[in-house]
Amino acid sequence: MKHGIRQLFIPGPTNVPDRVRRAMNVPMEDQRSPDLPELTLGLFGDLKRAFRNESGRVFMFPSSGTGAWEAAIQNTLASGDKVLMARFGQFSHLWVEMAQRLGLDVEVIDVEWGKGVPLDAYEARIAADADHEIRAVFVTHNETATGVTSDIAGVRKVLDAHSHPALLFVDGVSSIASIEFRQDEWGVDLAVAGSQKGFMLPAGLSFLSVSEKALAANHDNRPKMARSYFAFADQIAMNDQGYFPYTPPTQFFHGLRAALDMLFEEGLENVFARHHRLAEGVRRGIQGLGLKLVAAGPQWYSDTVSAIYVPEGVDANRVIKIAYERYDTSFGGGLARLNGKVFRIGHLGDLNAVMCLSALAAAEISLADAGAKITPGAGVAAAHAYFREADAPVLVERQAAE
Amino acid sequence: MKHGIRQLFIPGPTNVPDRVRRAMNVPMEDQRSPDLPELTLGLFGDLKRAFRNESGRVFMFPSSGTGAWEAAIQNTLASGDKVLMARFGQFSHLWVEMAQRLGLDVEVIDVEWGKGVPLDAYEARIAADADHEIRAVFVTHNETATGVTSDIAGVRKVLDAHSHPALLFVDGVSSIASIEFRQDEWGVDLAVAGSQKGFMLPAGLSFLSVSEKALAANHDNRPKMARSYFAFADQIAMNDQGYFPYTPPTQFFHGLRAALDMLFEEGLENVFARHHRLAEGVRRGIQGLGLKLVAAGPQWYSDTVSAIYVPEGVDANRVIKIAYERYDTSFGGGLARLNGKVFRIGHLGDLNAVMCLSALAAAEISLADAGAKITPGAGVAAAHAYFREADAPVLVERQAAE
Amino acid sequence: MKHGIRQLFIPGPTNVPDRVRRAMNVPMEDQRSPDLPELTLGLFGDLKRAFRNESGRVFMFPSSGTGAWEAAIQNTLASGDKVLMARFGQFSHLWVEMAQRLGLDVEVIDVEWGKGVPLDAYEARIAADADHEIRAVFVTHNETATGVTSDIAGVRKVLDAHSHPALLFVDGVSSIASIEFRQDEWGVDLAVAGSQKGFMLPAGLSFLSVSEKALAANHDNRPKMARSYFAFADQIAMNDQGYFPYTPPTQFFHGLRAALDMLFEEGLENVFARHHRLAEGVRRGIQGLGLKLVAAGPQWYSDTVSAIYVPEGVDANRVIKIAYERYDTSFGGGLARLNGKVFRIGHLGDLNAVMCLSALAAAEISLADAGAKITPGAGVAAAHAYFREADAPVLVERQAAE
Amino acid sequence: MKHGIRQLFIPGPTNVPDRVRRAMNVPMEDQRSPDLPELTLGLFGDLKRAFRNESGRVFMFPSSGTGAWEAAIQNTLASGDKVLMARFGQFSHLWVEMAQRLGLDVEVIDVEWGKGVPLDAYEARIAADADHEIRAVFVTHNETATGVTSDIAGVRKVLDAHSHPALLFVDGVSSIASIEFRQDEWGVDLAVAGSQKGFMLPAGLSFLSVSEKALAANHDNRPKMARSYFAFADQIAMNDQGYFPYTPPTQFFHGLRAALDMLFEEGLENVFARHHRLAEGVRRGIQGLGLKLVAAGPQWYSDTVSAIYVPEGVDANRVIKIAYERYDTSFGGGLARLNGKVFRIGHLGDLNAVMCLSALAAAEISLADAGAKITPGAGVAAAHAYFREADAPVLVERQAAE
Repeated sequence: MKHGIRQLFIPGPTNVPDRVRRAMNVPMEDQRSPDLPELTLGLFGDLKRAFRNESGRVFMFPSSGTGAWEAAIQNTLASGDKVLMARFGQFSHLWVEMAQRLGLDVEVIDVEWGKGVPLDAYEARIAADADHEIRAVFVTHNETATGVTSDIAGVRKVLDAHSHPALLFVDGVSSIASIEFRQDEWGVDLAVAGSQKGFMLPAGLSFLSVSEKALAANHDNRPKMARSYFAFADQIAMNDQGYFPYTPPTQFFHGLRAALDMLFEEGLENVFARHHRLAEGVRRGIQGLGLKLVAAGPQWYSDTVSAIYVPEGVDANRVIKIAYERYDTSFGGGLARLNGKVFRIGHLGDLNAVMCLSALAAAEISLADAGAKITPGAGVAAAHAYFREADAPVLVERQAAE
Repeated sequence: MKHGIRQLFIPGPTNVPDRVRRAMNVPMEDQRSPDLPELTLGLFGDLKRAFRNESGRVFMFPSSGTGAWEAAIQNTLASGDKVLMARFGQFSHLWVEMAQRLGLDVEVIDVEWGKGVPLDAYEARIAADADHEIRAVFVTHNETATGVTSDIAGVRKVLDAHSHPALLFVDGVSSIASIEFRQDEWGVDLAVAGSQKGFMLPAGLSFLSVSEKALAANHDNRPKMARSYFAFADQIAMNDQGYFPYTPPTQFFHGLRAALDMLFEEGLENVFARHHRLAEGVRRGIQGLGLKLVAAGPQWYSDTVSAIYVPEGVDANRVIKIAYERYDTSFGGGLARLNGKVFRIGHLGDLNAVMCLSALAAAEISLADAGAKITPGAGVAAAHAYFREADAPVLVERQAAE
Repeated sequence: MKHGIRQLFIPGPTNVPDRVRRAMNVPMEDQRSPDLPELTLGLFGDLKRAFRNESGRVFMFPSSGTGAWEAAIQNTLASGDKVLMARFGQFSHLWVEMAQRLGLDVEVIDVEWGKGVPLDAYEARIAADADHEIRAVFVTHNETATGVTSDIAGVRKVLDAHSHPALLFVDGVSSIASIEFRQDEWGVDLAVAGSQKGFMLPAGLSFLSVSEKALAANHDNRPKMARSYFAFADQIAMNDQGYFPYTPPTQFFHGLRAALDMLFEEGLENVFARHHRLAEGVRRGIQGLGLKLVAAGPQWYSDTVSAIYVPEGVDANRVIKIAYERYDTSFGGGLARLNGKVFRIGHLGDLNAVMCLSALAAAEISLADAGAKITPGAGVAAAHAYFREADAPVLVERQAAE
Repeated sequence: MKHGIRQLFIPGPTNVPDRVRRAMNVPMEDQRSPDLPELTLGLFGDLKRAFRNESGRVFMFPSSGTGAWEAAIQNTLASGDKVLMARFGQFSHLWVEMAQRLGLDVEVIDVEWGKGVPLDAYEARIAADADHEIRAVFVTHNETATGVTSDIAGVRKVLDAHSHPALLFVDGVSSIASIEFRQDEWGVDLAVAGSQKGFMLPAGLSFLSVSEKALAANHDNRPKMARSYFAFADQIAMNDQGYFPYTPPTQFFHGLRAALDMLFEEGLENVFARHHRLAEGVRRGIQGLGLKLVAAGPQWYSDTVSAIYVPEGVDANRVIKIAYERYDTSFGGGLARLNGKVFRIGHLGDLNAVMCLSALAAAEISLADAGAKITPGAGVAAAHAYFREADAPVLVERQAAE
């Protein structure tokens, strides 16, 4: 029998703040009522702020993030279109697979898991594409399977350097609203996010933030894929009035209102800084335990999820099972080729320093139970030291004010 | 400023019972946890009971019902396939539109709005299709725009009479779990439902109940439409273990557990009988006010929604606006060609007799405010008389027991 | 098995608005945290506004309203003190009983049930009390058992006319925050209220609003009753810092914050006007059914509860049982001598016109089922006519604005 | 701005489990409905099981635990009665104070804070009371201010050894439902508990479990204190039918149902064992940090709360403030003479091992920030070692089963 708070340290769904849970606990309402647009038009506007997408628009689909991946493709590309993708983890792999199923001509660059988007290889390929056969370039901003963040601005530079007109697709499911994302500045055309990560909502709603260029591509004369549920046109016609082409999950809108309020009250820059600080604390803890990250170097470190190799001879799945069953803590598993070798700590969303210490404490004890030779307390102590050091300037200020 | 309980008499989303709201108000959980299948496998099994689909399987998609419409088509048909559809209201119209967008060769039979599926016309067309060019026959079980229920068993008889192998697609969004639906017995191959009607959940989850024949069609060698988000194969691979191919909205599963428990505790037959009794009470009330239904005769009456013509010279949209603004009551509007002429009362889901009296009271006062010449109280009184009469046998029993 | 919304038309607990329920659904918190006073000090201030008590203070006790009755007595009176009380219903009766148990020398004036405080009799008694032996005068502002409201300002005039120094105790449990109450202006010294009526919260918190004079009486040198749980001094010492002498139910504070916000957003005057309009609608409905109120005349009508005689030969308890079991509606019962003769409709708190129509519809059908000869629909129609007439000026305005 | 889960490690209110929160989130209901007794009579019965009081009865008062202290006294004792009490912390002190205010002739034995009930001194006093002038003996089972548990069975032995008829009063607010309590076996006559500790509910409901002897004392001919709100007789008359003499907070009953279900599903013995194991883990952590408990020795250790001396030169209030403001963790403060020297960790209610590790991690970092020389991680590591060792037999079993 289970007691107490269960810790959720998977990289999504994340902990839904009580404020958001409360906000969502509403009676059903008339999705065609005259009052709804006051709520929804505000959400559309604020989502644009969250994506830093001033010029385009954001769609909300009742679907998981995977649905928004599909929406992005169906509305702007046609079967047989050539696209450039990189694969360096399970989620970039799945996106490749979807693109292939939907009939795209996918040119895949495989990258060692632990690294992210290969700017050089992209540059070479883009440079070689003088005829602009590549219709779109895809990047997984944050590869959730490996805890690796890619350089989107770098990809933009590559495209610009060659004046290449390809659309830039970004999977930001586990990055947007947690780490820096600047759609306009980085020239991202289609950015995908989901409700259950940085937006701190339950799963079930996806966001697709679209540039003016992508909207134009949707409207132009080239035939696109057959589509209906995820069609932009239906959404645009209704969204502009604050409504939707089919029954929307209005309870999510109330939750999203609360979640966006929380993000803006904190300030996006502060949200990102908090994620960095908490992630770094977790990483120090990991290092304190003598463990290694999958991410191949600091330039790839993700501030939303860390994938961690267990020591040789230890079964990572056993660590995860022990954490779940004995210590009421959910960690993420190693996916595909990382299965059994890796466990993952999600450190995104509504999180604080003590929760991270607690994740480390649970990891330590579970590793030890699973037979790893680690020094108990060493992870907590290392994170602890970092948090104190990182907070030192703030503390001086606070103590002066006290 | 608004006070008190707002009455929701649209034909979905319906009132979510407090028990279901409570059940859904859960912290997020690990969608790959070892505990999840205990919950989800039970749901899959009980959904089959609710659809009376013993031999096939039910999918749950994070989407509106519209998504399940698309899933049904993408997984079993190919672009260019000939299908037979009937159009007799806004929702059957939208399904036709989707089928066309997805590239089907749709043969549409237009029927007077107020009637349902035209068995004779279907029979004629099926009889003529000796080569079985028609791959699928579509029926909207309950046309939500007109309050008309169609005879699905009749369509099955037509197909059987001609040994026609077409798949039978049914839109049961506003019927299933509220009025009788027998998938196996009626030979329905793909039945679509949504969370927010008879299943008494918020919007955001769709159900697609699929026969063995439809599953075989999905697996056979004919190419089907490009698909990924709604692909059966991914779902099947994961669902069999109690998991999902992408992050599922687990909060809905807890709500669905409660909703199915409520349906089975009451007993499906009793659920249907209750819907009939409440619907008939509303219809008597409508008649008591001298108003006419859109449904062209009793054989078409829907037990989940009534579409009601306002008297000549009265603007139905004004009635709806008054009900909403002055009397805290949401009625459905007249859609498409019925706009301005019709208002709709949804009477499905978690409902009782006094709620129906209350809907009638709100309708009376709103009609009067909008200038209709009606006798105040006449609707309530007529429904009242019916409820007392309908309950009489039960009451005799109860009084004997007291 | 029960379905749908259960109607609550008892005179408290009243319907807790969803907004308040949401606000109360909070994790427990540290009752000594530095953040708590920000919440609680605001509540104390706003409660004073709600009682129109600028000069004194309001206490919040974790108790029912009955506890606040006791607190009022224990802190300002001593065993053997003479007090003047009137008894005209079950709740004024219970207060008399409490006063006697606590050792007061109670002079009771019995009044016909259906009338309220007897100003003449009070005047006679006060005039005769030249030596000011009467330490306190008690009045039940709104007698919940009979649906009768008393004239508090009139009692104040009586005391002032004779310059009588007695403390004025008022039971405002079923009046305050629903109908007009002006503590400072009316010179009320101790006003009792509960969370579960006009304040729209669940039961469990009581309010005692105390004048400066009553606080002085608490502090003066005369010995008072033994007390500890309800002692003012402990509360004052802690409340001034925003804290409490024992563990407070902090969840109520969040609910109270929301409830007070709702009251002030609407405006207390509008709250009172709404209660009057809704109550009058119910009364018209009652009259439309040919039934009689217990309240002996319009000057006694309560805007928060109506006690209604059933026709001769009908058992009121049977009406209530039928309403509860068949029609999902809770009415109040006839208390003490009114038992079996009376049912009560509470019409206070978070309420709107259609809810009142619905209560009348449920009353009609339940009365008919119980054998009463009433005209179905007549109650709804009469209320309906009143609401339309009462709203006419507003409507003209609204229509002009549309 | 605050993020993430706030840790609540005060000794009450404790963390309300999500299941209990959900259960309490109900619409208001008719407190006189025919359905209520089904719920309430079950609660009364199960509360008796929780107190191990088969022969007597349990009262539920809408009040804090302090109210139940008062109820116990008012209903069985008279002003001037001699009672024996021991004072060894802030809560035993407050109970003495209440007894004095209510007019009892209190003989107080002061004990060094850090120890509990002085059996020798009680024995001496009881032995000397040949005339049985002492009407009641009071014991604070668990002194929440010092983290000290007293030997109730020992007090019973003292009374029995001298065949002394005094009533035995026990304050079990922070013990019952968390650590062993056996009312019948220990001959406890009046046992006080509150909703917000081991019963895992929000504050606002108190429990008073009363033996047959105490009920007889309530009924006998000796005059008792004036009482009304807390009078047993009114409760008994109504409780036997499942009702209450004044509006009860029915939402608590639904929460209590869920909480009792949780306690019995786990099994009371397992609940106690869990509390012991978690408490011991915390104590090992404290020792690992080189800190000292207020409790003067293992025989006094409380399994629900630990009071911990901070090192010389460190301000305990600063530690608490830092924990609250920087590390989102609420610890209890040092009360009265312990103020500034002590912080307290509540470890009761809905709790698991990782939460305890997390409390220790927060304590470590807050102590360090406040200038204490402690070894970071040492507390977590020591608790960790204990949990692994304590769980070893269970783990062997589990691993065999896996």
